Amino acid sequence: MNIACLDFEGVLVPEIWVGLAARTGIEELRATTREIPDYDQLMAQRLNLMAKHKLGLRDIQVAADELEPLPGALAFLTWLRTEYQVAIVSDTFYELAAPLVRKLNFPLLLCHRLQVVASGRITGYVLRQPDPKRQAVRGFKAMNFKVVATGDSYNDVPMLEEADRSWFFGPPDNVCRDHPAIPAVHGYAELRAALVTAKADFS
Amino acid sequence: MNIACLDFEGVLVPEIWVGLAARTGIEELRATTREIPDYDQLMAQRLNLMAKHKLGLRDIQVAADELEPLPGALAFLTWLRTEYQVAIVSDTFYELAAPLVRKLNFPLLLCHRLQVVASGRITGYVLRQPDPKRQAVRGFKAMNFKVVATGDSYNDVPMLEEADRSWFFGPPDNVCRDHPAIPAVHGYAELRAALVTAKADFS
Repeated sequence: MNIACLDFEGVLVPEIWVGLAARTGIEELRATTREIPDYDQLMAQRLNLMAKHKLGLRDIQVAADELEPLPGALAFLTWLRTEYQVAIVSDTFYELAAPLVRKLNFPLLLCHRLQVVASGRITGYVLRQPDPKRQAVRGFKAMNFKVVATGDSYNDVPMLEEADRSWFFGPPDNVCRDHPAIPAVHGYAELRAALVTAKADFS
Repeated sequence: MNIACLDFEGVLVPEIWVGLAARTGIEELRATTREIPDYDQLMAQRLNLMAKHKLGLRDIQVAADELEPLPGALAFLTWLRTEYQVAIVSDTFYELAAPLVRKLNFPLLLCHRLQVVASGRITGYVLRQPDPKRQAVRGFKAMNFKVVATGDSYNDVPMLEEADRSWFFGPPDNVCRDHPAIPAVHGYAELRAALVTAKADFS
């Protein structure tokens, strides 16, 4: 019994905050974990920018709704769901991810939650738990699943380390260099081949 | 962050083995956990019947492919996936459930696996783990989800006991009588109302 844990942004969909930057014209919203490794610092900057520009949940939901999955993502995921159970394990927020989750036919998504007051102003966020990607893999292992995983950045490393088999997916050079023990694949065809091999090895 | 754990047969789809009985004409395949509470005894009887009638995996897959989700199940599940994360937690087998999972747009399914030799003969089965429904709820709790659950029979009781909020779904009288502490709902409208209330209570 096998489950594939996939990072969301960079694997199946574009970086949501970068899309928000493009659609709101607020260039400083382009920062990601690649520029600001401290997630709390990054989110504080994002929420300050939102407040400064008087943007609320509704504004970013409208922007998020205009985003589309990466080319080939839906076909890849549709294939994957016939071969593995699938969980998206992400550091995004349910409130932002919802339109893209719908466009991918509602895969299971494990992520976090924004705190929003009645006016629509985003006041903060709630992480599901500490070390959430590693804990997700552990949870599925406790259900006696073999776990494969893929992701493209530093925050995926705990998940990739914890899984039975894992790959970076099209990672930047610095991520590969800092974690040479984790193999990398590039593109859905290569990922698919690796997943087929892993499934055969598990059975 | 909330997840709904749903039993499969009796909640979203008909009893698969009963469908197999109807489509193969083997009346003895109609037995379920309601008649034979010991699951290993029940599965031994089923596999003996399959062998006696020279039926293999392909035969029951053809029969399973003719089954349809219960009336209203797809609409209910489609709604639920916008309100909760969803996991189907079942004592069926991936090999039998596949056509119905496809017809429900590939919800996450936690169940078991048949053992099949090259000829197609089913030689046995592998349960994912002991006490699988309870362990599934525990796994999601370890990922810091609030868990709601529903099911219709005795094998669901560990899951219903372990969840933060749970209901029998259209259970037989004997199941209710034996577990009076677990409330019952009847039909998707009533289940939906209970799920909406639970979500509001959690937030």
